[in-house]
Amino acid sequence: MHYKYDKIGAMLSNKDKTYIPEGFLLSAGEAAIKKPGRKDIALIYSATEANIAGAFTTNRVKAAPVKLDIEKTKSGKGQAIIVNSGNANACTGRKGMQDAAETASLTAKNLKIKPSLVYVCSTGVIGMPMPMEKIKAAIPVLTANLGRASLRDIASAIMTTDTFPKAIAKKIKIKNRTGTMTGICKGAGMIAPNMATMLCFILTDIAIEKRALSKALKDSVRKTFNRITIDGDMSTNDTALIMANGMLGNSEIKENSASYKIFKNALDEITYELSRLIVKDGEGATKLITIEVEGAADEKEAEKDAFSVANSNLVKTAVYGNDANWGRIMAALGYSGIKFNEEKVSIHLGNIKVVNKGIGTGKDAEANNYLKNNSEVSILINLNKGSASAKVLTCDLTEEYIRVNADYRT
Amino acid sequence: MHYKYDKIGAMLSNKDKTYIPEGFLLSAGEAAIKKPGRKDIALIYSATEANIAGAFTTNRVKAAPVKLDIEKTKSGKGQAIIVNSGNANACTGRKGMQDAAETASLTAKNLKIKPSLVYVCSTGVIGMPMPMEKIKAAIPVLTANLGRASLRDIASAIMTTDTFPKAIAKKIKIKNRTGTMTGICKGAGMIAPNMATMLCFILTDIAIEKRALSKALKDSVRKTFNRITIDGDMSTNDTALIMANGMLGNSEIKENSASYKIFKNALDEITYELSRLIVKDGEGATKLITIEVEGAADEKEAEKDAFSVANSNLVKTAVYGNDANWGRIMAALGYSGIKFNEEKVSIHLGNIKVVNKGIGTGKDAEANNYLKNNSEVSILINLNKGSASAKVLTCDLTEEYIRVNADYRT
Repeated sequence: MHYKYDKIGAMLSNKDKTYIPEGFLLSAGEAAIKKPGRKDIALIYSATEANIAGAFTTNRVKAAPVKLDIEKTKSGKGQAIIVNSGNANACTGRKGMQDAAETASLTAKNLKIKPSLVYVCSTGVIGMPMPMEKIKAAIPVLTANLGRASLRDIASAIMTTDTFPKAIAKKIKIKNRTGTMTGICKGAGMIAPNMATMLCFILTDIAIEKRALSKALKDSVRKTFNRITIDGDMSTNDTALIMANGMLGNSEIKENSASYKIFKNALDEITYELSRLIVKDGEGATKLITIEVEGAADEKEAEKDAFSVANSNLVKTAVYGNDANWGRIMAALGYSGIKFNEEKVSIHLGNIKVVNKGIGTGKDAEANNYLKNNSEVSILINLNKGSASAKVLTCDLTEEYIRVNADYRT
Repeated sequence: MHYKYDKIGAMLSNKDKTYIPEGFLLSAGEAAIKKPGRKDIALIYSATEANIAGAFTTNRVKAAPVKLDIEKTKSGKGQAIIVNSGNANACTGRKGMQDAAETASLTAKNLKIKPSLVYVCSTGVIGMPMPMEKIKAAIPVLTANLGRASLRDIASAIMTTDTFPKAIAKKIKIKNRTGTMTGICKGAGMIAPNMATMLCFILTDIAIEKRALSKALKDSVRKTFNRITIDGDMSTNDTALIMANGMLGNSEIKENSASYKIFKNALDEITYELSRLIVKDGEGATKLITIEVEGAADEKEAEKDAFSVANSNLVKTAVYGNDANWGRIMAALGYSGIKFNEEKVSIHLGNIKVVNKGIGTGKDAEANNYLKNNSEVSILINLNKGSASAKVLTCDLTEEYIRVNADYRT
């Protein structure tokens, strides 16, 4: 049960609905977009209009629903999200845009709300027309079943090559009231450099101003979803949406207030833990790798270096093979585009210093053992140049990644 | 016998030494730097001082011999190259620089030539001290055996994870004389974006001016070795050296002459064919993939887009799986950083148009068959934006790549 995260206060299971925030109703169904017998469509509905904010893929090729939602988020308002897996509705031209808009308007009609309040998300194969007859048939059923699905059901319905559903929740005290914040996401491949094939829905009953909500999401995403990478590919469909319906009844949180800080910390925890789950479930991954670059001139440099190492197939396969081949880390730093003095670099694998002033310390055997005995490993690089740092999460590269991606459509 | 290339005039074998250019003597030995029983050190010697030019890795982390050779090429003169596999002499600090310089001076002493005329190349594991006792013991043996090795012996001695030796030669008519140009190289992993773990030695008896030689190499490398990629990693050791000893006795070729054109065309052929061999022998590769981007605003754009597609693990695994998943190609174009209009893009796999104006043509099944039935496949992308184009070679990504690189040092 990977999606249980006791340490931040969540205990999610089919029987436990206490982590669905107040006023949210969930529904999941089988539209046979994917193989029959698997959940592949879901509806998230708030009993009242909510404030909403979004973060989206920076790929120039954007799926139709992404283009639609980018427009919708400008209002800062929303009440429902309809999401399908199995088909990305990307590279589908004008027909794709019509299909996404029709999905929103049909859902709105069934829910008896304004179409502008319905967001659409899709994930799956690119370039195939949406099976609209199946979507149309599913919408009334989803609407009728609202309130019957668990967080796990939603997390399962949005999976593509994910091997486990991902959700995480937290109770948050805002003054004298206790609200709930819950994140559901899917990931797996194509997670880089800016939140690739990822869908994430964060729901909360805490009342927060539109602008504060938007700022909080943007800041959180920058340091979490935008700092993970599976294979360096970036998807056309990435979307993170946060809905705050205010049903807790607290007075609306404003930017820079004490409550904002509490809200933001909780959101950071949730997006960071979801990021970790996504990387842990990277296609074929056996190890989660944290790459931290310290001593850079600025954060951007540190981030660029960390991504260069994180996206190196040679580094990723070395970690998979429990081989403390730090030369590949040095090489990846060397082609990152960032200037540094080779003779000042130090590298740690876990607590073991393998490179000092650019030269090996002779502790490779010890470091090999560290890699062998841990499923979560850390690479710490110090450029000894400045004082900025950045942390990127990735996973190892394995035969299973090849199998999953060579067979994805077959 | 992958290194036979009849079509450009070469017939290389152990018995056929007619493709060793006039005045060059070769020697190969076993220094036990790698596993015992494998050739791992070689010496290339010209009976007379030759003009020489070089192209080197652009990785900021440069191996000691690379730093040494960059300095040496400034003179434009050389007479010998000593090369070892098994150890890259990279990230080895001052000791590494001393070792490289000592290797050059000991070789010079044995050959009775000036140390400045001896070039040193290394390939293999990064970060290990050079086994200098073994190198020192090998140099007199190599010197004594000069003339006894074939092109194949040299090509074999420089291999790391290569599965076959790579050499190619050509007879070239310059006015009334027929000269020889021969290229030997090794490749395998880390071949991108600028001639990664690659060593290449091109030998010719044709007389050509220093400046013309340098220009010819630079121009050839830009469109061949610098446009191939195996895994997006770039090595610390890449070196291409060309030696022209003038033993043919032709009058020195000058830039922009008719003979220069002939020389340059031959060099282009040799570097292109060696590039193809390197990619064909990419770690674990089963397919050679040519990616051509047309209709770009300028060549740089076209190259950047082609590399974005060539380095996409998702595209590479799809080709391996015979899956015409053009959505992954569109996604890779979308994150390349180059602006384009999605609705103008067309994509061909071989002769099959799979995308027209950004949308699938429904010929995926046909394209799957094309991938299935060919070990050399082409992806042609037209941005329909401008008139520039660029071609990049890569290979598919397979389970074998993972195995080779997870086990490289063990």
